[in-house]
Amino acid sequence: MSIPEVFEFFCPTRIIHGIGSVSSRLGVEAKELNGLKTIIVTDPGIVEAGLLEPVRGSLRKAGISCRTFDKIGHDARVGAVDEGAKLCQEEEADLVVAIGGGSALAAGKAVAAIATNGGSLGNHQGSASLLIESLPVIAIPTTAGSGAEVSAAVPYFDERLKRKTGTHSRFFYPKVAILDATLLDSLPVRQAVQSGVDALTHAMESLLTVKSTPITDAMALNAIKLLSSNLRVATNTSDLEAKQRALIGSTMANLACGNAKLGLAHLLNRPINSLFPEVPYGESIGVLLVPVMEYNFSASIDRFAAMADAMGERCEHRSTREFAGQCLTALKHLLAELKVTRRYSVGVVDKTKIPQMARMCAKGMHGGMQAEEIPETTLVKSFNRRQAKVSDVIRLYERAFDGWDV
Amino acid sequence: MSIPEVFEFFCPTRIIHGIGSVSSRLGVEAKELNGLKTIIVTDPGIVEAGLLEPVRGSLRKAGISCRTFDKIGHDARVGAVDEGAKLCQEEEADLVVAIGGGSALAAGKAVAAIATNGGSLGNHQGSASLLIESLPVIAIPTTAGSGAEVSAAVPYFDERLKRKTGTHSRFFYPKVAILDATLLDSLPVRQAVQSGVDALTHAMESLLTVKSTPITDAMALNAIKLLSSNLRVATNTSDLEAKQRALIGSTMANLACGNAKLGLAHLLNRPINSLFPEVPYGESIGVLLVPVMEYNFSASIDRFAAMADAMGERCEHRSTREFAGQCLTALKHLLAELKVTRRYSVGVVDKTKIPQMARMCAKGMHGGMQAEEIPETTLVKSFNRRQAKVSDVIRLYERAFDGWDV
Repeated sequence: MSIPEVFEFFCPTRIIHGIGSVSSRLGVEAKELNGLKTIIVTDPGIVEAGLLEPVRGSLRKAGISCRTFDKIGHDARVGAVDEGAKLCQEEEADLVVAIGGGSALAAGKAVAAIATNGGSLGNHQGSASLLIESLPVIAIPTTAGSGAEVSAAVPYFDERLKRKTGTHSRFFYPKVAILDATLLDSLPVRQAVQSGVDALTHAMESLLTVKSTPITDAMALNAIKLLSSNLRVATNTSDLEAKQRALIGSTMANLACGNAKLGLAHLLNRPINSLFPEVPYGESIGVLLVPVMEYNFSASIDRFAAMADAMGERCEHRSTREFAGQCLTALKHLLAELKVTRRYSVGVVDKTKIPQMARMCAKGMHGGMQAEEIPETTLVKSFNRRQAKVSDVIRLYERAFDGWDV
Repeated sequence: MSIPEVFEFFCPTRIIHGIGSVSSRLGVEAKELNGLKTIIVTDPGIVEAGLLEPVRGSLRKAGISCRTFDKIGHDARVGAVDEGAKLCQEEEADLVVAIGGGSALAAGKAVAAIATNGGSLGNHQGSASLLIESLPVIAIPTTAGSGAEVSAAVPYFDERLKRKTGTHSRFFYPKVAILDATLLDSLPVRQAVQSGVDALTHAMESLLTVKSTPITDAMALNAIKLLSSNLRVATNTSDLEAKQRALIGSTMANLACGNAKLGLAHLLNRPINSLFPEVPYGESIGVLLVPVMEYNFSASIDRFAAMADAMGERCEHRSTREFAGQCLTALKHLLAELKVTRRYSVGVVDKTKIPQMARMCAKGMHGGMQAEEIPETTLVKSFNRRQAKVSDVIRLYERAFDGWDV
């Protein structure tokens, strides 16, 4: 393992974890952050599922008032975030509690930043131009998960540009993340699986970037271990211990990818999110995961062997390459058992858009719609160790329509 | 692996690492922290070894002035820290760069806190009663190491009390840690070994406390992997890559033990530091490591098996217990190759003090000199999973005089 020239590891979010920790700790933490007036940012599904009860209860016990802003939908969107930020200003809120899946957490982080900085989320793409510290955020994930509770990233859908984009800033880190599996218990199986696969993709991709380090590798491999050994039970039963382990695994995956960055699965997913926003994020990532890992395999045999080990495979009398291959087999078995979608359906994702999507990838995660032609030999902008050309990306999208078998 | 009820992981220090990173990044980071007038806190050995050259050079290039306070000795001491804090106040310093081994880094962190809070380091024991944010600290370790660059702890020697004690606070976290193996190159072999063994002890002990979590375990096991596979070369040659890996391992060990806490080796070492301050810290920890690990073995077979795996042992047709035992064998082989001291010498450490030292342990890390008798069945205050009585501690000290063989 060689050490990259100058690298960083940073995550200032205090992570509190344990079954029941929202009830026992949220109010205490809110108080420590000098919260008196809280805005809870969430989506209507969370309210319906009754998940705000322990949240409100814990805040009330600490003498903290709260109001709920539950207009976050399928994605964090500019309109909803700006509206939430305005509410914070009007209410003179001093704390945001973001609770939900990745979109609600991203929205809560953005609401807290726009509330103090003014303007609109739509003004920020790539590195955010924020000058003022955000309102403090306590992030409570209800999926395992997006990892958004420990990340500096805010992916969002821009209604004006009609596409998915994103922004990042140190100001987006939540002050506190509370991981409590009791909030995952009402999550539908399909959503639990999709978010679990997203978390697994965070961990696997972070091992295959040019920015991975021994610190991020430690987080990523142990996230893979926790996720691969717990996702089956965590998504299909009410076993809170398994859900809690998967939840910690998801957070660890983001401690890894927040620093090591992501690879081709997340890059290729972005145009899908932009052009076909009705396809659930975790589902489309899941479709891309196997083709992208197969593409990466030959360039990172040692890393696939480490992943095979983390997935519980045993290296008995096998060559490293053979053992590394067990990672792909184990991954397919896991995804098959979780019943993930294995191919894009032509009725939902338009196959004729592949050339445009590949061009969009060329510009990286924050590229535009890219109507104009570019040579297929153009390198795509990515942290992926195996450097891909536009032609590679085209083949990967095609494979995502072909699907795979165990 | 069961999940403890409510747990935390926190390290707000931004970790920058890479060979040459002090020259290329210190000035940039100091500027980002709005540093204009810097006090460099260090020991005279660092100055003599010429290690301040890249430090001053990088600060100068960023237009930042600096003054050096090099009165830190073998331990962080109250008198020196208070004097350094006074200098910061007089100079109206806005940044502290702490550079050196564990004592210099601890002193730098304390200087920065006392500079803004006033008073004396001697007023703080256990949880520090600090009210004001410290001056920002950039910590640069020159050993691999204490891990002090990412910790909230300040162990120090109190001249008035004539003993080692310590204090901790979130205000003690450095803002930035820069890990650059080029600064380790002039370190004498013996010191390199002693600090490496200290780092290894941080990692191993953190796996054996009641506060360990999947996150701290990931850090600890990978720290053990990096340290056990690199310490031989890192301490005995000029191989910068090996030194850099050991340095990252040392930081990771502290990300683990800073959150999971420490066990009996560090607890038993504290009275040694108090009564026999001339024994180097890393040497006395090294003497305790094997007896303490042997004591812990039967209570944590699975964890010793995980450590054996991290140390590169292979589990072929062995029972878990047998494989776990390989951890102790591998540890002894490693320590023997590093030529660590294997027993306390009766000429240096007074064996008749064992009963008193055991009583001191009963009160935990911040206990006093404990002249009065207590029953040997008294439990010692520690996070160690296997709960020890005073009688156990007495036997462990005795074993530290007997020593061990490979």
